[in-house]
Amino acid sequence: MAITSHDVARLAGVSQPTVSRALRDDPRVSVATREKVRRAAQALNYVPSEAGRTLSTRSTRRIGVIVTDLTNPFYPHVVAPLHDELQRLGYRMMLLTERSDEAVAEEKLLDQSLDGVVLATATTDSRLPAQLDRRGMPYVFLNRDTGGSGDYASVVDNEGGGRLVADVLVGLGHRRIAGIFGAANTTTGRERELGFRLALADAGIGLPADRVVRGAFEYDTGYRALPALLEAAEAPTAVFCGNDVVAIGVLNAALAAGLRVPDDLTVIGFDDLPMAAWEVFRLTTVRHDLRELSRQAARLLVRRIDGDADPAGERLVLPTEFVPRATHARLH
Amino acid sequence: MAITSHDVARLAGVSQPTVSRALRDDPRVSVATREKVRRAAQALNYVPSEAGRTLSTRSTRRIGVIVTDLTNPFYPHVVAPLHDELQRLGYRMMLLTERSDEAVAEEKLLDQSLDGVVLATATTDSRLPAQLDRRGMPYVFLNRDTGGSGDYASVVDNEGGGRLVADVLVGLGHRRIAGIFGAANTTTGRERELGFRLALADAGIGLPADRVVRGAFEYDTGYRALPALLEAAEAPTAVFCGNDVVAIGVLNAALAAGLRVPDDLTVIGFDDLPMAAWEVFRLTTVRHDLRELSRQAARLLVRRIDGDADPAGERLVLPTEFVPRATHARLH
Repeated sequence: MAITSHDVARLAGVSQPTVSRALRDDPRVSVATREKVRRAAQALNYVPSEAGRTLSTRSTRRIGVIVTDLTNPFYPHVVAPLHDELQRLGYRMMLLTERSDEAVAEEKLLDQSLDGVVLATATTDSRLPAQLDRRGMPYVFLNRDTGGSGDYASVVDNEGGGRLVADVLVGLGHRRIAGIFGAANTTTGRERELGFRLALADAGIGLPADRVVRGAFEYDTGYRALPALLEAAEAPTAVFCGNDVVAIGVLNAALAAGLRVPDDLTVIGFDDLPMAAWEVFRLTTVRHDLRELSRQAARLLVRRIDGDADPAGERLVLPTEFVPRATHARLH
Repeated sequence: MAITSHDVARLAGVSQPTVSRALRDDPRVSVATREKVRRAAQALNYVPSEAGRTLSTRSTRRIGVIVTDLTNPFYPHVVAPLHDELQRLGYRMMLLTERSDEAVAEEKLLDQSLDGVVLATATTDSRLPAQLDRRGMPYVFLNRDTGGSGDYASVVDNEGGGRLVADVLVGLGHRRIAGIFGAANTTTGRERELGFRLALADAGIGLPADRVVRGAFEYDTGYRALPALLEAAEAPTAVFCGNDVVAIGVLNAALAAGLRVPDDLTVIGFDDLPMAAWEVFRLTTVRHDLRELSRQAARLLVRRIDGDADPAGERLVLPTEFVPRATHARLH
């Protein structure tokens, strides 16, 4: 008769779930107990089926998080909850901060030392996801994905968030509206722009080319865009920004240009970073749950590694909410 | 006659330095060339002497950077130049973002997969440096060190920077001065405080206990400290902050309290992060060369790994410079 984990549990004097956890090196089990369970398993010549994979050299209980843009203040807020949730699930986290997806693809750790990876800065034109598929490395997208079907992704309802902002601006009487959207090769940039444009179109409002800028999700994008937008044939009375960091660039540029916000210009961001609530900004923005976005990505990846995720892909979408602060006003 | 790297170079049709680099897996050599060189070396049965170390399993050409406080906006600015300089030197970088030095010490990578580590968030009471010494793992301190002799460290002249600020404040006529210093278990906090106090003492100015706060180098430290400082027996007319992030917390708290900066209150920071120059802040601060601080740490670590560093330790100190912007004024 085959030895089961229940036999090991009896010999070690622990519960059966503890045996599974101990043999997986789950940190919730003390080192002493793990050792006791391992000795019991050896004594009985027990080969765990479910845990067998993790005892082989192929499993490392280590997850890589790939961020190619760490100076973006968005990412540090993602990294901490991701670390903690992965730890809770029994994994250690490692940050790979290569400067490009191409450099990541050369990373030997992808073959040797990782059980899975979180892609936090994916672009729609990156070949990295296909390379990971080929190497059999499980991965999930966090925040940005490729927009393809079959993805495993923890994302935000960007289109809905874009719509929210357009509806608010229209309700406040704005008609000459501008958009500073994210890069066209990011789903966050594309979808926020799409939702915003669709809702404006519903209200019969167009977005002429000279009131649209696209760029990296950075302070400088907003800072440089505002002077250009003010030179449009019809200068905007409101600007929707692809994220809070861009919006903060716009607020600083407005100050430099002597524009009063919101009296002369309404500015709206996206993400609700802690910085958005600072007194100097009091930025009106779109909130989503950044911590849950990260935690959800961690859980999805672990399910994918364990073979418990939907083989057809899973796209987990968090809702958005409008956060009115001090940078929007009715057109007067 | 022994086969040399010149023979390999001739067979592979590349230069001798390229052979060395290729066998070290230096990223400056293309993957194709590395493969060609490796085949030539095999064909000649060539065993590189100098590169032998790196071909053994002990060397990985990989450096770990330990940051236990990634949400501090200071660190992302350090990580990018560190990555680039290490890459230039032929090393890959990996960020370990454990929540504490204790968790880092448990990290298996320290024994298996790293040639050295950069400690970017060391505290004076951490046992991690001693543990690394015991394990024979080369390391350098970046920005913060332990203050012990024999350290390998790339740091800033914090004491000199603290002195600079005190001299400016005294010159502007301020007498009721406050300090919001960093945590007492960081050398950056301690040394900035020391320099500041010494220069004030030289001018016959004291710093009473109710005008001193110490805390983490975070926004909230400054934001919470200001209301407390304003309740001192003699409220301050000027506040020196342990870093820019703390100073930005103070600027926001001043706005919340209806205080005008610099008319009612002078506020001075430390570091000159890009954020300090934003129009909404225009923070007067102390500058040091953040990029060079990081690059210098990378070079020092590689020298230590190569056995080229001074066995008695090396403490490389960057100078500081006062950056006058819009948050300081003469007492009136």
